Amino acid sequence: MSSTTPVARAFTSDNVAGAAPEILEAVVAAAGGQAPPYGADRISASARDRFDELFEREVDVLFVSTGSAANALGLAALTPPWGSVLCHHDSHINNDECGAPEFFTGGAKLVPLPGDDAKIDPDRLRVAARRKAGDVHSVQPSAVSITQATETGAVYTLDEIRALTSCAREAGLRVHMDGARFANAVAALGCSPAEMTWRAGVDVLSFGGTKNGTLTVDAIVIFDRSLTGELTFRAKRAGQLSSKMRFHTAQFDAYLTDDLWLRNARNANAMAARLEEGLKAVPGVALLGAAEANILFCRLPQQVIDGLLSKGYGFYHDRWEPGVVRFVTSFATTRAEVDGLVDAVRRLAA
Amino acid sequence: MSSTTPVARAFTSDNVAGAAPEILEAVVAAAGGQAPPYGADRISASARDRFDELFEREVDVLFVSTGSAANALGLAALTPPWGSVLCHHDSHINNDECGAPEFFTGGAKLVPLPGDDAKIDPDRLRVAARRKAGDVHSVQPSAVSITQATETGAVYTLDEIRALTSCAREAGLRVHMDGARFANAVAALGCSPAEMTWRAGVDVLSFGGTKNGTLTVDAIVIFDRSLTGELTFRAKRAGQLSSKMRFHTAQFDAYLTDDLWLRNARNANAMAARLEEGLKAVPGVALLGAAEANILFCRLPQQVIDGLLSKGYGFYHDRWEPGVVRFVTSFATTRAEVDGLVDAVRRLAA
Amino acid sequence: MSSTTPVARAFTSDNVAGAAPEILEAVVAAAGGQAPPYGADRISASARDRFDELFEREVDVLFVSTGSAANALGLAALTPPWGSVLCHHDSHINNDECGAPEFFTGGAKLVPLPGDDAKIDPDRLRVAARRKAGDVHSVQPSAVSITQATETGAVYTLDEIRALTSCAREAGLRVHMDGARFANAVAALGCSPAEMTWRAGVDVLSFGGTKNGTLTVDAIVIFDRSLTGELTFRAKRAGQLSSKMRFHTAQFDAYLTDDLWLRNARNANAMAARLEEGLKAVPGVALLGAAEANILFCRLPQQVIDGLLSKGYGFYHDRWEPGVVRFVTSFATTRAEVDGLVDAVRRLAA
Amino acid sequence: MSSTTPVARAFTSDNVAGAAPEILEAVVAAAGGQAPPYGADRISASARDRFDELFEREVDVLFVSTGSAANALGLAALTPPWGSVLCHHDSHINNDECGAPEFFTGGAKLVPLPGDDAKIDPDRLRVAARRKAGDVHSVQPSAVSITQATETGAVYTLDEIRALTSCAREAGLRVHMDGARFANAVAALGCSPAEMTWRAGVDVLSFGGTKNGTLTVDAIVIFDRSLTGELTFRAKRAGQLSSKMRFHTAQFDAYLTDDLWLRNARNANAMAARLEEGLKAVPGVALLGAAEANILFCRLPQQVIDGLLSKGYGFYHDRWEPGVVRFVTSFATTRAEVDGLVDAVRRLAA
Repeated sequence: MSSTTPVARAFTSDNVAGAAPEILEAVVAAAGGQAPPYGADRISASARDRFDELFEREVDVLFVSTGSAANALGLAALTPPWGSVLCHHDSHINNDECGAPEFFTGGAKLVPLPGDDAKIDPDRLRVAARRKAGDVHSVQPSAVSITQATETGAVYTLDEIRALTSCAREAGLRVHMDGARFANAVAALGCSPAEMTWRAGVDVLSFGGTKNGTLTVDAIVIFDRSLTGELTFRAKRAGQLSSKMRFHTAQFDAYLTDDLWLRNARNANAMAARLEEGLKAVPGVALLGAAEANILFCRLPQQVIDGLLSKGYGFYHDRWEPGVVRFVTSFATTRAEVDGLVDAVRRLAA
Repeated sequence: MSSTTPVARAFTSDNVAGAAPEILEAVVAAAGGQAPPYGADRISASARDRFDELFEREVDVLFVSTGSAANALGLAALTPPWGSVLCHHDSHINNDECGAPEFFTGGAKLVPLPGDDAKIDPDRLRVAARRKAGDVHSVQPSAVSITQATETGAVYTLDEIRALTSCAREAGLRVHMDGARFANAVAALGCSPAEMTWRAGVDVLSFGGTKNGTLTVDAIVIFDRSLTGELTFRAKRAGQLSSKMRFHTAQFDAYLTDDLWLRNARNANAMAARLEEGLKAVPGVALLGAAEANILFCRLPQQVIDGLLSKGYGFYHDRWEPGVVRFVTSFATTRAEVDGLVDAVRRLAA
Repeated sequence: MSSTTPVARAFTSDNVAGAAPEILEAVVAAAGGQAPPYGADRISASARDRFDELFEREVDVLFVSTGSAANALGLAALTPPWGSVLCHHDSHINNDECGAPEFFTGGAKLVPLPGDDAKIDPDRLRVAARRKAGDVHSVQPSAVSITQATETGAVYTLDEIRALTSCAREAGLRVHMDGARFANAVAALGCSPAEMTWRAGVDVLSFGGTKNGTLTVDAIVIFDRSLTGELTFRAKRAGQLSSKMRFHTAQFDAYLTDDLWLRNARNANAMAARLEEGLKAVPGVALLGAAEANILFCRLPQQVIDGLLSKGYGFYHDRWEPGVVRFVTSFATTRAEVDGLVDAVRRLAA
Repeated sequence: MSSTTPVARAFTSDNVAGAAPEILEAVVAAAGGQAPPYGADRISASARDRFDELFEREVDVLFVSTGSAANALGLAALTPPWGSVLCHHDSHINNDECGAPEFFTGGAKLVPLPGDDAKIDPDRLRVAARRKAGDVHSVQPSAVSITQATETGAVYTLDEIRALTSCAREAGLRVHMDGARFANAVAALGCSPAEMTWRAGVDVLSFGGTKNGTLTVDAIVIFDRSLTGELTFRAKRAGQLSSKMRFHTAQFDAYLTDDLWLRNARNANAMAARLEEGLKAVPGVALLGAAEANILFCRLPQQVIDGLLSKGYGFYHDRWEPGVVRFVTSFATTRAEVDGLVDAVRRLAA
């Protein structure tokens, strides 16, 4: 597995990376011989066991083809059609899934809340969680969705998560975590997956794989196992029950072996920190927030932006105020790639 | 890639097979380096070109993770919520998708029709296609769905397909083809993919890959390209737009290279024919219908069924009248495996 | 309130009748002065009390504008999107509501069952109620819907109802009763409303008013009151919570006063019986089934059908085998009207 | 028809009023004799003709039981499931229908926009109408919904409406008008219904009746008649096709006779203006905005609010900043009632 581009210059998103070699090997190894379909095979059983181990308890897991499906299915199990999902204004479910949560829930409403660093402000949640509760004219607050790490690369502390989940509990709401960058958040906090999820009050988790080394599979981890039956039917009915399930589960089996998920995330985070460190020293560059996970926002002079683009660098640069850019690193990002970017910025800024 | 079972004994379904080596190689080759997400990469472009070539015209293609998703999305583009889909009573969409078409269409109704060999009877279609048309109290006939090859392994002739599509056209209905075993049907008919689809009046096709060598990907081929915009949004919203799309498209790129799809299907069909040939000669075995594709139904004495099961053979045997069993072959089935099964039946029947 | 047609000749359906005078008076009386909206008024409270009285226990009631809404909402509370509703092949929900149950449930499936006189065969229900239960590939049997009186004018005995509800219970299904002609059934059986519903195992009832004297209102009577919260939100969200609720509830308040509902139904049933009695004596007329409620099927010579139509009589005559016609009587049908019809048939048959 | 309360003191909403006498008479007159169901009767034909006359062109009309149903059905015909409806933050569809638009559209998204007096700011609409158009990751701007008169009692001028509809047109969006208080707006502007709707670019109108004198019926007026077929099926399927349709249409037949609709609205508006005039003169009372239609907002000293409540006056007073109250008048409000309220405020403020 060799990269055709010796130095990869796309910092657009972690989804421009390929797949981790260990995972590819597991897929290839899974392909021989016959196996029962729909997850009744040995590899799938092993992957499920690894999830139990990872979360230090029995959990139920469904394997789906995208993070959008994971989020929308999870929310559908927590929110009736007449319910609302409280989420951050910048959340992926609110902005980037073309209404998938609305489709899967049968028309629930997403209620966007403000907060710095794309984290939900707990005071706003407290109010929103009780807003018009019991009023037949209004959708009913039913679930809160927390993105960990957030869309801007920030990471909720455990206390911050617990503050939100306790608001939710007190008002009778369920808790969903969008963990598209779950591994990056765990790596950043140095906590256990259990601490960051069910021990902190999370009912259903979208456990991301695709951004961190798997091919086309993410997982729904169900802590409130009373929801498993419903979610199983919902997933099938949504076209998310793969017959050759072993090709999904082999990926997670490898992903959860020898902490591959965590090692991959640590690399991504470390590369973002290295990038931050490098850019910090460049005159004219202003860092915006801290790169807690694998996303870094900063403000660059226009000639730097133009120069980077003309050198083939890829990154989002026209979605926010002029000059604001976003760099994302991944499990596959190398020191040389980061250093090359820093060097390019330094030269262009001079 | 070595099979752990030297002789595979599961004839349960074609989904017990693994993946074709050529496809695995393509996936591995696709994994290196960076690529734009969501299908904007070179491999995806190549795969799309191959579909144009295969169908001898420009087509639009969406890559999804299951045949259920392919069917349900395709039907949703052809059927309004107040519409009905006319299909065979035994069709997969009617029986085996947990209501996926109903979910994706927003509550349309499936109207099952009879017919031998799981083929829709054109006379019944003719009547059903106009039933209560314009009557506000009734769902409106909107689409017909044809499974090719059928759930019992029969294959519609081109004339039979055209008879159904012309019924549909005359009544203003659209035409969907469930081609989970598309390749097996083309191999059986010896016709071109174009002849069996758009030239015969098909608007949208579920183009199966998973049962014939891909891992976890199927395709929606859109002949009525006015539906593409809608389908693109529907697919995203259904959680079916994979970010690392190249891992889906690499599979189809390989699948459509050097006629792999057709070679695989020919093997499956040939193995079913070989099985038929072998069993025909065994006293006490009654063949039910002809194995036109890769599915064979027959009636076996109970002691043969019991004996096969005890030897570790896998097949469906308790879904129909007593004694009726179904054997399915795949791209991976070998002569030795078929001959082993025939031999086992022969001994047990003796 | 005088009819402009001295002798009404439409026997098409009970929905060709107007409204009962007592109900019109109640509506007019309700119109003066101010009242709190959405059912918080005195008249609505009174109507709800009358339902408690009628059913000899506390029930919850929602007032909706059509029987279709009553049925679809009730079923939505009993059936998840991945569920199925077992009903008779001839049931109104299956044939005449343009997919309303599918819409309100979020895409559940109606599974039609056979049975004489449009009554569900309990043996078929027993099998269907467990069919593919727990199989993730299939919709899950969730509710059974019983139409009382049936679409052909037959009436389930209490034993017949209990046979169905106990099948349902044993398999874990909920029970819905479509009582568009509830009053006619009670009148026919001579039992109490309680006996025919919750005491016989019914969870949710569509309590018809429109066919028996109200204007444009029907009711959902909820015996399993744990469903009330959900149904209240579903009804609002479906556009079925009227602000000037007193105009709905005033109708039911009058309808349930001094047994108006029962007296109206008794008249309708008696007129159907009188019609049956009269036609029985006419040579060439064959009665089909018994007129247990207010619907009578019979076979007439073609010249009789043509003659009646030319005299301005209205009735369905081309929906079944040639010669089969349906006559429906209502609370407003008079002896003179029935005798006129019998007389006309007699002359034409001569 | 005598009011039980000689002086009605509820200024909570126009839905606390009863029904107009002319409309009650029409309902009573419609109740005699037989009539074809589902709108095939003479009264329904007459009502439809009156709509044509009112709008100076052929229009299609559906009669539904609530304004929520009218809005949600209209929006469903203009917005695909993956679409968004641009509306004011304070709009009824966004706040007070428990997600009815989301349910009827199959999960479209409401995008709230700001603007004074609950009117959509055209500059914000211009931006929102093109936001992420064509981006598969986002719901697609599809319709704009204008409430006329607005929820705060303001009235868009014709120029203001045209400014919004032309923004919509340029971006390819359809236009819905929520006319729950349509008559009040026409009365305020002194324009024709045609000018305020289709001539100004409106595609579908919710034509309110209930707040202005009908019992439990509102209408959907379809100017883009290509939507009529779809809307007819959608309405039936939503349980909104009443069998005894004449009871709905008789109300509108009377409502549109001799300008009853307009006379009723003029009274409501005049009473709000009279209230404004009266309160203006009271020291300590601050008017908030102008009472263009039949809603008046003002700020009252707390002792006035408390005093009014203790005297039995009804009005919303705790939904906004402290001291802000809303008074709503209706077709039934009398001068004596308004003068009584002004007098009470004056005494309490002294």
